[in-house]
Amino acid sequence: MASIFSRIIAGEIPCYKVGETESCFAFMDIRPMRRGHTLVVPKTEVDKIMDLPEQEYADLMAFSRIVGQAIEATIPCNRVGMMVVGLEVPHAHVHLIPIARMKDMQLGVAHEPQSNEELAATAATIAAAIG
Amino acid sequence: MASIFSRIIAGEIPCYKVGETESCFAFMDIRPMRRGHTLVVPKTEVDKIMDLPEQEYADLMAFSRIVGQAIEATIPCNRVGMMVVGLEVPHAHVHLIPIARMKDMQLGVAHEPQSNEELAATAATIAAAIG
Repeated sequence: MASIFSRIIAGEIPCYKVGETESCFAFMDIRPMRRGHTLVVPKTEVDKIMDLPEQEYADLMAFSRIVGQAIEATIPCNRVGMMVVGLEVPHAHVHLIPIARMKDMQLGVAHEPQSNEELAATAATIAAAIG
Repeated sequence: MASIFSRIIAGEIPCYKVGETESCFAFMDIRPMRRGHTLVVPKTEVDKIMDLPEQEYADLMAFSRIVGQAIEATIPCNRVGMMVVGLEVPHAHVHLIPIARMKDMQLGVAHEPQSNEELAATAATIAAAIG
């Protein structure tokens, strides 16, 4: 069965999209650790990031940098943190989280719950900065 | 003043080295969240990872994949998690952490303290798997 991320990429499940490339897709985490928390996902469904083919991994990381720079440019923060865990959804994904303090990186803690309207607005703001 | 990581790379401070490339350096975190916790650092001293030049960022991520695969091949774990935070040392670095549970990614918690001998042995094991 397709992962929840593959279903989001296919448009079967709605999301707050930030951007995409030929091989990656970026959208808002709907339970953000901080406002601006974005997920970047390879379109190829691989459980563990270290198992992604070399070029797809390189593309995923390159697009994560572009999206991360757009987050830093638009969301007030000290910097953008990155995290790859992957124990909950078996489809590799990069968390990009605008952080100010160490504890902003504490996985599973939603420090700044966002309404659907806020998620949509933030996605549009970041997407515009990607250009 | 050079960062602690630049001083490690320069050999002024000892470390348990795992490997290096022209532009990156990998060594054991001496306060590992789990056994095998490794840091990969660009030789260029940049505070925020999103500020690394495109090619150096790509090299850092490519070498992190190689080291991550070596960790997965040698240290018992579910997978290798990745984390970039950078609030403590102003020199961008990628944490590679062999994890089994979500809480293994909880920053600042040393779940498996290691002796110097254990750190040296683990560094040698991972280094051998890089080949």
